[in-house]
Amino acid sequence: MDIFEAIHTRRSIRHYKSTPVSDKNIDIILEAAHWAPSWNNTQCARFIVIKDNHTKAKLAETLPHNNPAAVAINTAPVVIVACAELKKSGFMGGQVKTDKGDWFMFDVALAMQNLTLAAHALGLGTVHVGLFDSEKVAQILNVPDGFTVVEMMPLGVPADEGKTSRRKELAEIAFYESWGKTIV
Amino acid sequence: MDIFEAIHTRRSIRHYKSTPVSDKNIDIILEAAHWAPSWNNTQCARFIVIKDNHTKAKLAETLPHNNPAAVAINTAPVVIVACAELKKSGFMGGQVKTDKGDWFMFDVALAMQNLTLAAHALGLGTVHVGLFDSEKVAQILNVPDGFTVVEMMPLGVPADEGKTSRRKELAEIAFYESWGKTIV
Repeated sequence: MDIFEAIHTRRSIRHYKSTPVSDKNIDIILEAAHWAPSWNNTQCARFIVIKDNHTKAKLAETLPHNNPAAVAINTAPVVIVACAELKKSGFMGGQVKTDKGDWFMFDVALAMQNLTLAAHALGLGTVHVGLFDSEKVAQILNVPDGFTVVEMMPLGVPADEGKTSRRKELAEIAFYESWGKTIV
Repeated sequence: MDIFEAIHTRRSIRHYKSTPVSDKNIDIILEAAHWAPSWNNTQCARFIVIKDNHTKAKLAETLPHNNPAAVAINTAPVVIVACAELKKSGFMGGQVKTDKGDWFMFDVALAMQNLTLAAHALGLGTVHVGLFDSEKVAQILNVPDGFTVVEMMPLGVPADEGKTSRRKELAEIAFYESWGKTIV
C-alpha cells in the first residue's frame, strides 16, 4: 500500500472480526514499529502481544466502567500492549536533558504510528487505548520496575470501516515563519 | 512509495542540499502529519514552517554549544517546529485522566512520524532535534502561553544517505502473553 494512501485511509477501528492474525503478520507489524527512530537510538519501546482470552478479559477490567474500548480489547484477536523503559529517552548520562523530562511517550508513539500504518496496509485495524489503570496492567503482565505501560492497542480484521474524525483546517494548525502567520 | 519501503528505508538525515522545498510538498507533508490520530481527536499538535535564514540562525543558537544538529538547522532549506497545545491530550473536562499526565508528547510524535514518512516518500530527509532551549524558541517564534515547543525538524533534499542505527533484536523488545516470554 502506498504511504499516502495508508496515512489518509487509516481509521480508528473499535469493532473486530474474530479472524485470527497470523504470527507472520504480527512479526511484520512489530518490525515496522521497531524501525521507528528513537532518542539517541535508546530504543525504549517494548511490546507485549496478547492472544489469550483470559488475559484480554483481565486487561479489559483495568478500563473505566462502561468504557466501550473494553469490548474492543475483549473481542479483538490480538492486543498489543506498548511499554517503555524509563529514564532512557531524553536522558544523557542518567541526567534529564530537556524541560520535557522523559521522552518515552514520544518514542513509543513514533513506533506505534509505524505499527498502525503497517497493520492497516495488511488489512488490519487498530485503535489507541490510553485510558486504563496502567499499574494494574503492569501487574497482570509482570512488567518490571523501571518500565511503564503506555497504551493497549487492539489488532484485528475490522468489522466496520471506522469513522472519519473531523479535522481542523490546516490554516488553524500550520503557521509560516512565526506563530499565527497563515500566509506563506 | 510503499509503506513498508518508507518505514524501512527512512534514515535520520543530518546534511542537506540547498535545493528549495516546494510549497506544494510542504502542504502534502503537513497534511500527512495532520491525518495522524490524537487523544479523543483533541488535535493538540501545531507546526511552524521556517524558511527564513535569519530565523533559522536564531533557532540554531538555542542548541547546546557545538551540537552538530545546529548545522542541520542552519543549512536545511526548511525547519518544521512542532508545538503542542497543553492540557488537551490526556484530559477530559480539564482533568488529567491517566498517570502519564499530558499526552501531548505522544500525539505530536504520532504526527511527526507521519511527517517523516511522507517527506521520505517525496525524496526529502528529516531528523528529530529535541535538545534545545524550548522557551527561547517559543520567544523567537511568538508561541503563546498554553502551548509548548516540542521539537525542531530540518527538512530538505539529503546530501548523504544517513546511517542505519543498530537495532536490538526483536526478541529483546517483543514478548508474548507476559513480560519476558519470547516464544509464541
